[in-house]
Amino acid sequence: MEAFSDGVIAIIITIMVLELRVPHGTDLAALTPLLSVFLSYILSFVMLGIYWNNHHHLLHAVSHVDGRILWANLHLLFWLSLVPFVTAWMGENHFASVPVAVYGVVLLAASIAYYILTRALIALHGKSSTLATAVGRDFKGQLSTGIYLAAIPLSLLRWWIGFSLYLLVAIMWLVPDRRIERNLAE
Amino acid sequence: MEAFSDGVIAIIITIMVLELRVPHGTDLAALTPLLSVFLSYILSFVMLGIYWNNHHHLLHAVSHVDGRILWANLHLLFWLSLVPFVTAWMGENHFASVPVAVYGVVLLAASIAYYILTRALIALHGKSSTLATAVGRDFKGQLSTGIYLAAIPLSLLRWWIGFSLYLLVAIMWLVPDRRIERNLAE
Amino acid sequence: MEAFSDGVIAIIITIMVLELRVPHGTDLAALTPLLSVFLSYILSFVMLGIYWNNHHHLLHAVSHVDGRILWANLHLLFWLSLVPFVTAWMGENHFASVPVAVYGVVLLAASIAYYILTRALIALHGKSSTLATAVGRDFKGQLSTGIYLAAIPLSLLRWWIGFSLYLLVAIMWLVPDRRIERNLAE
Amino acid sequence: MEAFSDGVIAIIITIMVLELRVPHGTDLAALTPLLSVFLSYILSFVMLGIYWNNHHHLLHAVSHVDGRILWANLHLLFWLSLVPFVTAWMGENHFASVPVAVYGVVLLAASIAYYILTRALIALHGKSSTLATAVGRDFKGQLSTGIYLAAIPLSLLRWWIGFSLYLLVAIMWLVPDRRIERNLAE
Repeated sequence: MEAFSDGVIAIIITIMVLELRVPHGTDLAALTPLLSVFLSYILSFVMLGIYWNNHHHLLHAVSHVDGRILWANLHLLFWLSLVPFVTAWMGENHFASVPVAVYGVVLLAASIAYYILTRALIALHGKSSTLATAVGRDFKGQLSTGIYLAAIPLSLLRWWIGFSLYLLVAIMWLVPDRRIERNLAE
Repeated sequence: MEAFSDGVIAIIITIMVLELRVPHGTDLAALTPLLSVFLSYILSFVMLGIYWNNHHHLLHAVSHVDGRILWANLHLLFWLSLVPFVTAWMGENHFASVPVAVYGVVLLAASIAYYILTRALIALHGKSSTLATAVGRDFKGQLSTGIYLAAIPLSLLRWWIGFSLYLLVAIMWLVPDRRIERNLAE
Repeated sequence: MEAFSDGVIAIIITIMVLELRVPHGTDLAALTPLLSVFLSYILSFVMLGIYWNNHHHLLHAVSHVDGRILWANLHLLFWLSLVPFVTAWMGENHFASVPVAVYGVVLLAASIAYYILTRALIALHGKSSTLATAVGRDFKGQLSTGIYLAAIPLSLLRWWIGFSLYLLVAIMWLVPDRRIERNLAE
Repeated sequence: MEAFSDGVIAIIITIMVLELRVPHGTDLAALTPLLSVFLSYILSFVMLGIYWNNHHHLLHAVSHVDGRILWANLHLLFWLSLVPFVTAWMGENHFASVPVAVYGVVLLAASIAYYILTRALIALHGKSSTLATAVGRDFKGQLSTGIYLAAIPLSLLRWWIGFSLYLLVAIMWLVPDRRIERNLAE
C-alpha cells in the first residue's frame, strides 16, 4: 500500500508541471503571465510534499491493514489526484475567487480523508497502539481542516485571504515538527 | 511483477485526471460541462482501485511465475491502460450510448483478462495451493463479467442502464468482502 | 537500478495511451480513424512488454553494477523513451513509409542498446558467471537487430513489409521461451 | 525516501518526451523543426540521469533522515521537476538566448539544492561518517555550480556559449568517476 501511495503521490506532484504550458515568446516578459500558474504550482508542490511526508510517517507505524483501510487510503488519493486540476484552474485564472475557493474545497476534502484514514487505522490498531500514540490528537491536522473551512467562504470575498490561509497551513507544517522528529529518530 | 503492475496501475489512475481539462470560465457554472467527465472519472477511479486491491491481494498468494503469467499480467494491464481513453470519451460526450457501451467493452475485456490471469496462476500453483483456495470460485469476478456482457447491448438502448450496471459492479466490490479480510488477516 | 528502470518502462508504456486522442464523434465510425493509432499502440505495448520481461530477467542475474552499467542502462531507457513519439507519428499518419522506417530506427537503436548493456554486464561479471550463462549467445536478440536492419529500408518500399517484420520480432519473443522459463524456475 | 525520489525522477525524465510533439508531415523534413527540441531532450535526459546516479549513490550512504532532510530532498525534486518546462521552452524556440539562460537558472538552482541536501546529510551523520567521506569535498558539484553561474549571463550574449557550458558539465559527469566506482565496489 505504501509503494502504491508513494507512486500515486509522486505522479500527481510531477504531472502538475505539465500544466506549466510553454510560452510562445522568448523573452522574460513571456514568463510573466505564467507567474500565477507558477505560484500555484509551488503551493501545491509543498502541499503534496506535506501529505507525502505525513502519509509516509503514518504508514511506518502501521502493522496491518484491512479492506476498509485500503479504501480510506484510495479515498485520500482521490482528492489528492484532483490537486493538479484545481491548481491549474486557479493559476490560469490569476487567482479568481471561485477557483481559489474550489482549490480550498479539494484541500478540505483531502484533510478530511486523511483524518478518516488515521481514525480507521487507530480503530484497527487499538487506542493504546504505537500508531495511536504517534498520531496523537493530530492538533495540526484538525487546525488545518478548520482553516480550510474558513478559507473557502473568505476566498469568495477576497481571493488573497483564502490564498494566505492556504499559505499559513503550508508554513505551519513546514516548521520543524518535534513529534515527527522524535518518531523518525526512534 | 507486483512492483511493475502497481506502478502501471498507479500511473493509469493518475493520468486520467489529465482528461479533466481546465475550463475557461471562472465561476461554478464553468464546471457544469465537466460534470459528466468528473462522474466518469470517479467511476473509473473506483474500478481501477478495485483492480489494484484484487490484483495486490492475488499476487500476495503467488509464489512463482513463468513467462505465461508475465504475459497474462501484461494482457490485463493492456486493457486497464485503455480505461483513461474510454473514460474521457464517455465523459466528454455526456454518456452517449456508443461510448458508454465501449466503456463496458474495455471493462469486460479487463475482467476476462483478470480471469485468464487467475486461471494461469492456479494452473501453475496447483488446485490445492493456497492461491487456488484464496481465489476460490471467484463468484464475484464471474458475476461482474456477466453484468458487463449484459450492460454493453443495454447501453445502446438506454445509456443509464449500462452506467447503472457498471455502478452496481463497483458497489458489489466496495462492500466489505470477508474473503479478502480473512486472507489479509492471516 | 531495477526499480528505476521498471518505473521508467511502466511510465513509457502508460503515457503512450495519452496519444490515443479522444475522438469528437460518438458513434463507432468515430473510432475508425484511430485504428492505425490503436494498432501501433498494441505493437509498442507488446514491444515494451518484451523489453520489460527481458530486462527484468537480465537484472535478476546481476550481482553488482558500476557507473558504466548505469549509463548503458540509461542509454537503453533513452531509446525506449522515444517509443511513444514514433508510435504516435506512425499511427497518426496511417503507417506512412517514413514514420514506419523511423519507428524501426528507434527499435534498432534500442536493440543495440540492450546488446551493449548485456555485454557490459558480462564484462563485469565474467564469462563464466551465471549472468553470462543466462544471457548465452542471445541469438534472438541478434536476430531481432538483423530484422530491424532489414525492415528499415524495406519500410520505405512498402510500409507493410516493415510493419510485418516488426510483428515477426514481437511474435518471436512472445512464443514461450524455454531459456527464460528454465531460469525463472531456478 | 529513495523510492519516492526515484519515482519522481523517473516520471520527470519520461514525461519530457511528451514535449516532442508529433509532426504533421510524413517525411524526414517534418522532423527538422524538432531537431532543437530533440537536442534539448537529450541534454536534459543526460542531466537528469546524472542526478539520478548521484542521488542514488548519495542515498546509499544515508543511514537516517529527519524532517529537514525530507524537505531538502523535496526542494531538489522541485527544481528537477521544472526541467521538462525549461527544456521545452529552450527547444521549441531553437535555443533563443533567454530560454537558454533560464534553463541554466533551473540547473543552477538544482545544483544548489543538491549541495544543500548533501550538507544537511553530513550535518546529520557527522563529519567523520561514511557519508561525509563518500561525498568528500564534492569538487565536481561545486565546479558545476560555478559553470552554471558563468553560463547564465554568457547565454544572453551568445546562446551557444551557454549551451556548450551545459554540455561541458554533462561530459564532466559522464566521464567515469573513480570515486563513485570505488564506493559502488565496496
